[in-house]
Amino acid sequence: MNISDAPVYRYKLTLEFFGTGLVGWQKQNVGRSVQGILAEAAKKFCHHDVTFHAAGRTDAGVHALGMVCHVDLPQEYPAYKVMDALNYHLKWQPVSVLASTRVSEEFQARFSATKRHYRYHIINRRAPLTFQTDRAWHVKFPLDADLMHEAAQLLVGHHDFTTFRSVECQSQSPIKTLDQLDVWREGENIYIDTSARSFLHHQVRSMVGSLYYVGRGKWTKRQLQQSLEACNRTALAHNAPPDGLYFVSVDYPEDFEIEE
Amino acid sequence: MNISDAPVYRYKLTLEFFGTGLVGWQKQNVGRSVQGILAEAAKKFCHHDVTFHAAGRTDAGVHALGMVCHVDLPQEYPAYKVMDALNYHLKWQPVSVLASTRVSEEFQARFSATKRHYRYHIINRRAPLTFQTDRAWHVKFPLDADLMHEAAQLLVGHHDFTTFRSVECQSQSPIKTLDQLDVWREGENIYIDTSARSFLHHQVRSMVGSLYYVGRGKWTKRQLQQSLEACNRTALAHNAPPDGLYFVSVDYPEDFEIEE
Repeated sequence: MNISDAPVYRYKLTLEFFGTGLVGWQKQNVGRSVQGILAEAAKKFCHHDVTFHAAGRTDAGVHALGMVCHVDLPQEYPAYKVMDALNYHLKWQPVSVLASTRVSEEFQARFSATKRHYRYHIINRRAPLTFQTDRAWHVKFPLDADLMHEAAQLLVGHHDFTTFRSVECQSQSPIKTLDQLDVWREGENIYIDTSARSFLHHQVRSMVGSLYYVGRGKWTKRQLQQSLEACNRTALAHNAPPDGLYFVSVDYPEDFEIEE
Repeated sequence: MNISDAPVYRYKLTLEFFGTGLVGWQKQNVGRSVQGILAEAAKKFCHHDVTFHAAGRTDAGVHALGMVCHVDLPQEYPAYKVMDALNYHLKWQPVSVLASTRVSEEFQARFSATKRHYRYHIINRRAPLTFQTDRAWHVKFPLDADLMHEAAQLLVGHHDFTTFRSVECQSQSPIKTLDQLDVWREGENIYIDTSARSFLHHQVRSMVGSLYYVGRGKWTKRQLQQSLEACNRTALAHNAPPDGLYFVSVDYPEDFEIEE
């Protein structure tokens, strides 16, 4: 049934998902996607085909602690019921709805967003992983996190990030403003926290891969600077694996909430 | 080959393991055990049947962040080689060797231990788990962690812990001294940290299950006290699932290390 002419009731949802084994956010012809899993669950309780729109289209294997999406439902439900009903039908799926709000149609998960926050997790130790398999990038070679943090500051600000952009990137411009890129160590864990209004496709993983070169001593800070200035994908050091990447949260200028 | 008459070289190993799907520490007729997995890996590099002895024999589904065990090898190797060779043959297994030391024969992982530290992890939220499935106890009903902590102090000290003891417990006495039982919340996570020279079988899970009753408001502090004083397994509230239980670390009075 086509519901485009019917009145719509928009909901903002906050999601957690474990991306291993998924093809990413976007529904594709083959494989399980977060969008597809959500649509199947929604159909079971609202009996319509609905489309979920995310703040960011994550890649295969990338995780989320607080992805935000919106969906238009053909009928009004209390917000907590949308969360509970989706979670009921998501049982045994690696996707969970953490929060749900009824919002105005002005809210769009992608276009209303003013800032996105990602975290990359490296486990820097000799021993293989057990708990964190698929949940972090395992680097055996000792990394200098302080040096990585220092070098990271070269990437903060307004730059042409062509070097750090996938060839499949659909963004109109490679010029972005990076607000934060912090690298810090806690025991064997290295965290890389980054935020910007928006990122290019593969930008976080490409930046992390280059900082890894710096942390291992393969690249100097100057080489990182040259790689940025080259504005050429072939000047990239390394693309970090998706396993360590988490979409953490997204900021909106207002809450767009409609009182129930 | 029987190696009991040959000279032995003792190693102390620190292990991490993800206990889901395992029958626990101890080798059994059916199922995969940590002890069995380690023995298979050791046989592949030292070509002998050797037995690993742990500081604590964890149950099926219980995890470890820093279990300690010892093993006698028929030949001397540098300690780091024992770690690397085991890890090489443990590939794809949920067991990892974090550290290895050559120790004197006076060291016994179980009997030399002076204190054991466990952590229990509850995730207290409405939404189902994704990342933490099998890694925490999911409790949907709001728990009062402060009240749980207050009540927990009734169990600290020298007591007869019969109520909190499995019927299968092989300990000679139910009287133990509990040194620490702290309950604290960090967002949706509730951690229960406990330490003692030794614990009875199921004691941690039984104490957590009872504190859960207090946190839900099903039991008063007085009822917890009465349950302890009953010295009777039937006075137990609830046995918490193994998924949230982690063997964190173990203390020894000295390092027993032999210089290589």
